[in-house]
Amino acid sequence: MNSAASEPALIGVDWGTSSLRAFLIDTKGNVLDGVSSPEGIMQVADNSFEAVLDRLIGPWVMQNTLPILASGMITSRNGWVETDYAEMPLDAHGLARCLVPHTLTNGRFIHFVTGASAEHSGGPDVMRGEETQIVGAATLGLNDGLFVMPGTHSKWVQVSDGKITDFSTYMTGEIFAALKGHTILGTQIEDGDFNGAVFEAGVKAGLQDPEDLLHNLFHVRTLPLLEKIPTTATGDYLSGLLIGTEIASATRKTDIATAVTIVGRNDLTDLYEIALRAAGLASRRAPDNIVAKGHFMIAKAAGLLE
Amino acid sequence: MNSAASEPALIGVDWGTSSLRAFLIDTKGNVLDGVSSPEGIMQVADNSFEAVLDRLIGPWVMQNTLPILASGMITSRNGWVETDYAEMPLDAHGLARCLVPHTLTNGRFIHFVTGASAEHSGGPDVMRGEETQIVGAATLGLNDGLFVMPGTHSKWVQVSDGKITDFSTYMTGEIFAALKGHTILGTQIEDGDFNGAVFEAGVKAGLQDPEDLLHNLFHVRTLPLLEKIPTTATGDYLSGLLIGTEIASATRKTDIATAVTIVGRNDLTDLYEIALRAAGLASRRAPDNIVAKGHFMIAKAAGLLE
Repeated sequence: MNSAASEPALIGVDWGTSSLRAFLIDTKGNVLDGVSSPEGIMQVADNSFEAVLDRLIGPWVMQNTLPILASGMITSRNGWVETDYAEMPLDAHGLARCLVPHTLTNGRFIHFVTGASAEHSGGPDVMRGEETQIVGAATLGLNDGLFVMPGTHSKWVQVSDGKITDFSTYMTGEIFAALKGHTILGTQIEDGDFNGAVFEAGVKAGLQDPEDLLHNLFHVRTLPLLEKIPTTATGDYLSGLLIGTEIASATRKTDIATAVTIVGRNDLTDLYEIALRAAGLASRRAPDNIVAKGHFMIAKAAGLLE
Repeated sequence: MNSAASEPALIGVDWGTSSLRAFLIDTKGNVLDGVSSPEGIMQVADNSFEAVLDRLIGPWVMQNTLPILASGMITSRNGWVETDYAEMPLDAHGLARCLVPHTLTNGRFIHFVTGASAEHSGGPDVMRGEETQIVGAATLGLNDGLFVMPGTHSKWVQVSDGKITDFSTYMTGEIFAALKGHTILGTQIEDGDFNGAVFEAGVKAGLQDPEDLLHNLFHVRTLPLLEKIPTTATGDYLSGLLIGTEIASATRKTDIATAVTIVGRNDLTDLYEIALRAAGLASRRAPDNIVAKGHFMIAKAAGLLE
């Protein structure tokens, strides 16, 4: 990396519900420095977002007057500034056109990247933050096919020629926690090492009869009760059943020409890789920090780097 | 009713997880007297089941030496005496052959009606108590077709010529409570009068795409968020979505020649009647106390009334 490429050009902020990451980005879109904090929007009291931001990016801002871009749940009703959703198809240029500038106390701007909405027959879908990651992935050649972003609320995003064309949210992660913690299923789940065979059996049950989930979940009770699986693997069966059901639903209306791209850095992504394989689908991993690439591409499209 | 028909002949006990009902039954199978208690098996400490029973049916037993039959979760691992499951097809004679006698302190017997198990490709299914209700319904001419027993764990039971031939459990009620109480969906549910139109919209979404439940549940968040339904009706949408999904799954493999029979006495049964109608299915209600009819038929088949 030469010295010109290391010139700071932008600050990107990925501000979610439960955490916050900020990146110092250079003129080529590479990350020079990063900082993270558990101060997600639900942890910030009295709307003191600017104070949190100042403290985190202060060392960077003192030396220059870089543009600042922020994406994620920070633009939701419970965030700093609520912004409208952008419509699809959507790429860096579309998101650049929808940037919402907000004046900081020092007279400078923070530019908010708004989220995206989708309208399906069953109801609307929304995301805030994932659109910026997808736009970042597109700069790395991951610009076509189906993306899965596992998490509390998984997102499945359809990308075509670098544009987001559709997406759907699955509440799988949150439902797993609620079932484990607050139903009779949890009473038969004991901690244990990961049991891959039982996890895959759950995945296959979900893949085979996704419309029967409310019934299939009862097997999470009967299988250990009748000693067909050990209680130390019951959590893996539940996890596999839910992820298999999700994959069956998310892929059933889509021709999957290329590998499914898995976005994320947590343990869940390993489970999705195994589950996709069980479904006969190839997968690939998106690199870390694609969100910073997204901030860079949107800022560039908006002319903020000139 | 003449005096001969009013002769006490049997005591039937329906002892579930969270409550207990006992019936004094005459020689024709009619209920002469009944008593109920919140002392379900989970509320009885130190296995003091006999003391609870003595107190409840004491007034009846003092005057005679009637046979006693008990069905329900009382025969589960957490109950009084754990019994094996009976295999299908199953009617009053089959259940009579599987009765498990247990000697009481006074030297008399209590006869336990055991539950039934089913083996499906996804895993085993079990019930304890519902088989006795179905056998009772059969004596009232409800001896064919699909039965639904709504509750924490709904049972869908296939009955042919008075015999139970198959059944499946759906965890719908417990999942509703877990989602409402312990996920973000609950934060957008406010109490309000029942909203039939929103409930039916939920039912139809579930009926149409039952394999998409993990995604459809996210609409319980977005519909009120984007003001498509009022927060006071969000609970009705969630309830409808789950029940519609259950009905789609439970009826998809079955030819439904006659009306679906709804068994139960709680508010839920009204919702299932509306939901079945939305699915284009006729329904009928089983009368109350069919479980006592079941106790009577099983006791009779076992020769206990002679």
